[in-house]
Amino acid sequence: MRIALGVAYRGSAYRGWQSQPDGRTVQDHVDGALSAFAARPVRCVCAGRTDAGVHALNQVVHFDAPVERSADGWVRGTNRFLPDDIAVQWCRSVPDTFHARASAIRRRYAYLLLVAPVRPALEIGMVGWTFRSLDESALRQAASILVGTHDFTAFRSAECQARSPVKTLHRIDLSRRGDYWRVDFEANAYLHHMIRNIMGCLVAVGSGVRPVSWLADVLASRDRSTAAATFSPAGLYFVGPYYDPVHAIPETTAAMSWLP
Amino acid sequence: MRIALGVAYRGSAYRGWQSQPDGRTVQDHVDGALSAFAARPVRCVCAGRTDAGVHALNQVVHFDAPVERSADGWVRGTNRFLPDDIAVQWCRSVPDTFHARASAIRRRYAYLLLVAPVRPALEIGMVGWTFRSLDESALRQAASILVGTHDFTAFRSAECQARSPVKTLHRIDLSRRGDYWRVDFEANAYLHHMIRNIMGCLVAVGSGVRPVSWLADVLASRDRSTAAATFSPAGLYFVGPYYDPVHAIPETTAAMSWLP
Repeated sequence: MRIALGVAYRGSAYRGWQSQPDGRTVQDHVDGALSAFAARPVRCVCAGRTDAGVHALNQVVHFDAPVERSADGWVRGTNRFLPDDIAVQWCRSVPDTFHARASAIRRRYAYLLLVAPVRPALEIGMVGWTFRSLDESALRQAASILVGTHDFTAFRSAECQARSPVKTLHRIDLSRRGDYWRVDFEANAYLHHMIRNIMGCLVAVGSGVRPVSWLADVLASRDRSTAAATFSPAGLYFVGPYYDPVHAIPETTAAMSWLP
Repeated sequence: MRIALGVAYRGSAYRGWQSQPDGRTVQDHVDGALSAFAARPVRCVCAGRTDAGVHALNQVVHFDAPVERSADGWVRGTNRFLPDDIAVQWCRSVPDTFHARASAIRRRYAYLLLVAPVRPALEIGMVGWTFRSLDESALRQAASILVGTHDFTAFRSAECQARSPVKTLHRIDLSRRGDYWRVDFEANAYLHHMIRNIMGCLVAVGSGVRPVSWLADVLASRDRSTAAATFSPAGLYFVGPYYDPVHAIPETTAAMSWLP
């Protein structure tokens, strides 16, 4: 029986999602906890691999269950074996045709940015920060340039393994609460470091270091060296994937109303 | 010259505010950073000593500056010597009659509580949690019993050093965002563990474990053994003190719009 889980985590202490030999990744903990609860080896597949330091509100994973347990059992049983900063939030039985990564139609990320003269302390690890004041109108104009289907090579890291650099960015939304700026991204998929590279460019434009037109030039260049530096992972949240509603996969977790 | 600073910190890694021989407190770091920047020994006095694991949005401190520096210098210079989870947010010159603790008229705290069947992960260390559903109306009625001037001995820890157990609780406000419940407290002062003990009792009433009338009995008993267990420090935030407006002490920091 194939099982889907929603997992929330604070990524600060981990080397990203993807399993690594040293075991210090979120997947290593999730696989380990599922295996401990099932008393059989379990390996899961995720909707979106997050980088070191990046958080997830509703990371969706699937696995083929080697034992039968209730949905509630998978949630509570797995959580008993997980560290405090990773927790399964929900569980659903899904048909064998469901695949956490391949079935995902769109993926949503949010970037939280503190725009203030003094660095954060309380929210350490949970926000990006710029001490420069930002021009909201310039930032919105720059963001709108990126919406659509484009070759995003200029925002792609050297380690990116995606087959194609062409992605469709359905929307970039900007909202603010006090000094916290939130940028929401929705795309079919992303290149490695794409959002953090875009954030670096948006901050360059918003702070007046570069004009709005520069972002169009960067996008057209398909050259990573023209773009700004990769922004901090601390403010990046994988909000979650979207699937065909037929799968009835939950799209929210409690932590979603935590964020500004 | 007397200087006042606003300090924000995440308390998770520290044994509370108050300096201790082992040096693992927030005050030890703040005094150490001020002393390093001033190149002279500095010891500060705070508005409200927080317990281990408790956070602060606008902890106000004062000290007598052994050297002259600009306000901006005290902020940036001190922050260079502070760990990532502690940061000075603002600086003001104050008359020698200003005293961070003695001049404070009221103090505000907020408690953040996740009310959800599954434990938090992303917000680890930043929220209290109960898996029981809560009756908002019962919780509000219980809270209203505590407002006013009372002998709060029933909510006082054995280690409390306050001269009098009589405090004036000006208000308790309840607000919600999604599954996060926020309880705001404003009082002239607090006994040791008072808010965490009150939170334990409010959750007991809200979840139906105890009737509303029980809280009146606990308050009247002046007996700590009648109250509920002390709630987790993780959800507790020292929002900040209030002073006579003549002192022009800032009452907000950026982090205040972070919280739900």
